[in-house]
Amino acid sequence: DDLKKQQAVKSSDPYSSDPERHPALVINSLKPFNAEPPPEILSDSYITPSALFFKRNHLPVPQVDLASYRLHVEGLPGGKLTLSLEELKTRFPKHTITATLQCAGNRRSEMNKVKQVKGLNWGIAAISNAKWSGARLRDVLQAAGYGPDVAQSARHVQFEGLDKDVTGTTYGASIPLNKAVSEEGDVLLAYEMNGEDIPPDHGFPVRVVVPGVVGARNVKWLGKIIVSAEESSSHWQQNDYKGFSPGTDWDTVDFKSAPAIQELPIQSAITSPADGAMIDRSEETITVKGYAWSGGGREVVRVDVSVDGGKTWNVARLSSGDKGQTPEPSPPPGRAWAWKLWEVSAPLPAEAQEMEIICKAVDNSYNIQPDTIPPIWNLRGVLSNAWHRVKVKVREDESEE
Amino acid sequence: DDLKKQQAVKSSDPYSSDPERHPALVINSLKPFNAEPPPEILSDSYITPSALFFKRNHLPVPQVDLASYRLHVEGLPGGKLTLSLEELKTRFPKHTITATLQCAGNRRSEMNKVKQVKGLNWGIAAISNAKWSGARLRDVLQAAGYGPDVAQSARHVQFEGLDKDVTGTTYGASIPLNKAVSEEGDVLLAYEMNGEDIPPDHGFPVRVVVPGVVGARNVKWLGKIIVSAEESSSHWQQNDYKGFSPGTDWDTVDFKSAPAIQELPIQSAITSPADGAMIDRSEETITVKGYAWSGGGREVVRVDVSVDGGKTWNVARLSSGDKGQTPEPSPPPGRAWAWKLWEVSAPLPAEAQEMEIICKAVDNSYNIQPDTIPPIWNLRGVLSNAWHRVKVKVREDESEE
Ligand SMILES: [Mo]
Ligand SMILES: [Mo]
Repeated sequence: DDLKKQQAVKSSDPYSSDPERHPALVINSLKPFNAEPPPEILSDSYITPSALFFKRNHLPVPQVDLASYRLHVEGLPGGKLTLSLEELKTRFPKHTITATLQCAGNRRSEMNKVKQVKGLNWGIAAISNAKWSGARLRDVLQAAGYGPDVAQSARHVQFEGLDKDVTGTTYGASIPLNKAVSEEGDVLLAYEMNGEDIPPDHGFPVRVVVPGVVGARNVKWLGKIIVSAEESSSHWQQNDYKGFSPGTDWDTVDFKSAPAIQELPIQSAITSPADGAMIDRSEETITVKGYAWSGGGREVVRVDVSVDGGKTWNVARLSSGDKGQTPEPSPPPGRAWAWKLWEVSAPLPAEAQEMEIICKAVDNSYNIQPDTIPPIWNLRGVLSNAWHRVKVKVREDESEE
Repeated sequence: DDLKKQQAVKSSDPYSSDPERHPALVINSLKPFNAEPPPEILSDSYITPSALFFKRNHLPVPQVDLASYRLHVEGLPGGKLTLSLEELKTRFPKHTITATLQCAGNRRSEMNKVKQVKGLNWGIAAISNAKWSGARLRDVLQAAGYGPDVAQSARHVQFEGLDKDVTGTTYGASIPLNKAVSEEGDVLLAYEMNGEDIPPDHGFPVRVVVPGVVGARNVKWLGKIIVSAEESSSHWQQNDYKGFSPGTDWDTVDFKSAPAIQELPIQSAITSPADGAMIDRSEETITVKGYAWSGGGREVVRVDVSVDGGKTWNVARLSSGDKGQTPEPSPPPGRAWAWKLWEVSAPLPAEAQEMEIICKAVDNSYNIQPDTIPPIWNLRGVLSNAWHRVKVKVREDESEE
């Protein structure tokens, strides 16, 4: 009887078939599942293990049956193209890229401290880095009849997920056509993440990976691709994931007035030490670690770190791989899709009892992060990329007291 | 006798044949000639008249004889290609773009106020917007034998000017090959500026226009193009026009450690009112005007203006043309080469006797300008793109006193 009741509850809960998750994840929302790893874990490995990669679901994880799974491609002169997973894997060359994905809401919690915003209260770890393998979207669109003529009328490529809300509305988003078809855009219909089948939380069996572009356009559980004159009509493309002036509130906001977020701006954060950590005076130097990334394939070229609240700056050492391993080769210009991890050691300021540690990154277009959050505050709390600041306390050695 | 003496002086002065200039220009250096227009003039017309376009010369203006002028293209499998101006005009389609050029040192004077930097003391007007017409560099490179194979070994396109120093060294710079050959890069070998032959100060007869890229790579008086595995070895590519951390000084700087500036970051400035202007209380509202631009073809999507030192923000109206004229059509994504002019009216703050007016712009990658200058200060004073601030005084009406 109890069992029956449990099953009834289970089947009425669209989240009942969501996969199990790694216990180390910090949960922001359970249904839909949204969680980020502890920040220190991010800088432990250049490639984030899939189980620890941040999870950002808008809806229940759909259960996909591979036997009946088909990817539909529409809106091209060749008519409709329909592909099974096997066809996607065998008809198109497999291409692998290392790409960082970041949620538009990463670091929203810092905006929330300035003034309440609407959205999940992400810390600094709604960003992760993985190796993705799959067919190039460009190749699939060409097989479906894409040619230069299409660009006369079409401007966008829309994606529909297989994840649905209770009314049957699926998640959807779009990207500019030129990103989708450019040889240098590296947009993938990915079926592998870190060398294995993409896990259910990350879009099994196929997700779009749009490197350099906000997570929200990297549609998971991909069901349909539509080449179109219009952007996706979905809520998430039209009435969400856009940036506004700090003076814009829910009474005055006009979502039509701002472009949908695509490429993200320069970002960096300190993963260690944690805010509030205690440092022993005897250590003499402090080691600071973190990540830095920029959208649009712009490479991070420098990270400045201050241990005195921004009065003086040290240049961090950047890395594109783990210690003792061969770093990833330098990407061609405009195709730096992966983050850099960084580390710097600085002497403890002589007198300080409390230190404010700050990082700020620079990309190869020399874009920089803004100093403070209030001037970039926006009602949805997206694009939170001001300098990251943590405060630590210095504990005097007992012998000296 | 006097005349002979004058002629002797003249012929020994390499700048003696420099052209005449518009008297309204504010001169930063006479030899070489470097000058900017008064800021208010910039926002008077969407297209800057050539005579008022900022002038940035590194060397004397060369006198070019069209009968003997040849443009040389080297480093491609097809051998050397040599083109007269007439051949450049007739063998390749003429292409026109509107593009803003900005000197890397624009707004350097604001950095100088924080701490002395090395370089010309530019105000906010080392930036201007013009229509450029010419052959596509891409077409010329293809005629010279460029094909995808070349990209296996070549990475850069170098440019040499005909302007020389006393030792015979010419001005030189380079850009990444992918920008040069991309269909969407719009790099021109321009022979017209605003519908007329390019004036001597702007590169007659041919200059490279590399839209979205720092002025310094837009080589004037173009003599030679070299496709190469290496960047230009010129001083200006290797040991100048690079950004550094505020902590880097002339004792510690390693020019090899930073990338040559190519795409510039988001920028904006207030052209009116001028710093120190006096506003009458009776006016009740204040109108603020300026320009905004971003490198890399990123479109400016918003300008926020504060008249209370950054406490509150108003969104400015953007324009891509002059009042009463049809604005320029919206550029395709990634090809917004031209600035936006902007304007906003705001109520005078009730009690204020002095107002700090601030502008900050946002591009379509949602990159923003940093709040303050000290954290982006660098020893060469380049990339000065913090919020622009002007202070104005409010004069109480006499009737009210
Ligand atoms: Mo997101
Ligand atoms: Mo410049």
